Amino acid sequence: MTREKILDFLKRKQDYVSGDLIAGRLAITRQALWKHIQELKDSGYDIVAVPHLGYKLVSCPDRLFPHEISSHLDTRLIGKKIYYFDVLPSTMDTAMGLGTKGAPEGTLVVAETQTKGKGRLGRVWFSPKYKGVYLSLILRPDILPNQAPVLTLLSAVAVCEAIKEVCRLDTQIKWPNDIFLNNKKIGGILTEMAAETDRVSFVIVGIGLNVNNDKKLLISGASSLKEEKGEPVNRLQLLQELLRRLESNYSLFRKKETVRILDKWREYSMTLNKRVKVYSHKEHIEGQAQDVDADGGLLVRVDSGITKKVMAGDVVHCR
Amino acid sequence: MTREKILDFLKRKQDYVSGDLIAGRLAITRQALWKHIQELKDSGYDIVAVPHLGYKLVSCPDRLFPHEISSHLDTRLIGKKIYYFDVLPSTMDTAMGLGTKGAPEGTLVVAETQTKGKGRLGRVWFSPKYKGVYLSLILRPDILPNQAPVLTLLSAVAVCEAIKEVCRLDTQIKWPNDIFLNNKKIGGILTEMAAETDRVSFVIVGIGLNVNNDKKLLISGASSLKEEKGEPVNRLQLLQELLRRLESNYSLFRKKETVRILDKWREYSMTLNKRVKVYSHKEHIEGQAQDVDADGGLLVRVDSGITKKVMAGDVVHCR
Repeated sequence: MTREKILDFLKRKQDYVSGDLIAGRLAITRQALWKHIQELKDSGYDIVAVPHLGYKLVSCPDRLFPHEISSHLDTRLIGKKIYYFDVLPSTMDTAMGLGTKGAPEGTLVVAETQTKGKGRLGRVWFSPKYKGVYLSLILRPDILPNQAPVLTLLSAVAVCEAIKEVCRLDTQIKWPNDIFLNNKKIGGILTEMAAETDRVSFVIVGIGLNVNNDKKLLISGASSLKEEKGEPVNRLQLLQELLRRLESNYSLFRKKETVRILDKWREYSMTLNKRVKVYSHKEHIEGQAQDVDADGGLLVRVDSGITKKVMAGDVVHCR
Repeated sequence: MTREKILDFLKRKQDYVSGDLIAGRLAITRQALWKHIQELKDSGYDIVAVPHLGYKLVSCPDRLFPHEISSHLDTRLIGKKIYYFDVLPSTMDTAMGLGTKGAPEGTLVVAETQTKGKGRLGRVWFSPKYKGVYLSLILRPDILPNQAPVLTLLSAVAVCEAIKEVCRLDTQIKWPNDIFLNNKKIGGILTEMAAETDRVSFVIVGIGLNVNNDKKLLISGASSLKEEKGEPVNRLQLLQELLRRLESNYSLFRKKETVRILDKWREYSMTLNKRVKVYSHKEHIEGQAQDVDADGGLLVRVDSGITKKVMAGDVVHCR
């Protein structure tokens, strides 16, 4: 806590602050202050010390430290408890473990890189270090397992809103869980749950975003916010805005205003009104994507004129 | 492994076996044999040693040791890997942790007592030490989350079959997950899962059975196999038979012969053809329980003549 207060001091002043002043305000010794400053420098904060002038914060490291995420974050639920890791096998598995042990709703797991980042259906999410936002969020909605897909939709909306706000970029959602920018994939949502057959215990919403990835490290068909915008994006700012948007959309969900989430989803959708092929668990169908329904299912009108509801599967947009 | 072999020797002979013979067969020293025997005695095996005669097994402890469970168990999948605990908060949570870490299908978690045994919908399952069978089983079927309820049905059938075989007692199933004997509750099934919204990662089937509980420690409306049968039941034998029956019924499920599971379930059901009240997640309905369907849902004909399908809830059988 003391370290965060020292940082706050330095950030607000944006100039030299006398060590005596800081130590006095925080009621610590000059010696203790010096130790904290050293630790901050070890974490990557560039702080210069000049005799008679004091300390000055020159720059912050490009890290998603929990005290930075929490700093001036005004959410009531989402991210109130944060677990931060430099490296993890998968934020999903860590969050699943925390959820099983009873971690409260809103608990956030963030990693700077994942060695076994998870995508949908057992696929891998490539998670290069310090380049993206890789998070898992524990939610505890009072719902049946078949209502969970709506959480994927609202999270996708939150991602698009946050990117719009922070980067001024217009992203689109490919049903059910992909985030696209200029027809290239830049992110994905993975929703997992622990449930009894008739009650969800908790849901883990995982979000992976390519933020500052360089072109040469991106696979074909993928891109990053930096590549599309032409300049690096502040990951911390983006993450904070994302948490705010997750909170506001989840709040709609809890107030049973799913209809408003769906309206926003439709606006961001790149799937609706397209001709699609859906490869699902057991069948594959082809037709016109017409709408998304209150369960998060995709309504596809097949060529015979019948409308089918798809809850699972991979969508291919036809030309 | 050596200890299990020594036990096997003593069990087969049912009389004194010379230490030289055992040590020779297992290619260990007399000194090593003596140590193993001491350890077995420490675990509760009553073994007497008489000079010139050798060792004799007088009795086995009433424990569900994994080497006892595995002994002569002919299943191919269920219980091939066993985690055994004298005490656990909950076998469900331990199994959930193991499942997340990738434990294979068929992995079994057994505890002699649970301090926070879980029932359905957040309720407590009272688990007095050495009196019951408390287990959780990890399954990895390739199904959608809404197909998981059938696993509850097939597990209930396996429980009834095992009790019939070992105790010669006729139990009944109250939809969805309770096991009754002479109109008293003696067991329950709890099915949990970890899933993506469109794919089950793994399912945990939890089974709690009151086996040798004394009347004075049972709550009103509950009973135990011992109380109903009038004599103690061999927990180990019951558990082994249960694993066999779980394997055969799960095998039907994997071969998509759900119809055969449902037929057996109907025979054991005490809910069908009864007038029931169902208190479910959001509504409550009353009517005649008519059938169970391929998803594990209960079909109830309400008084207007319409048949409603119930996937969740508590059932009260009306007089």
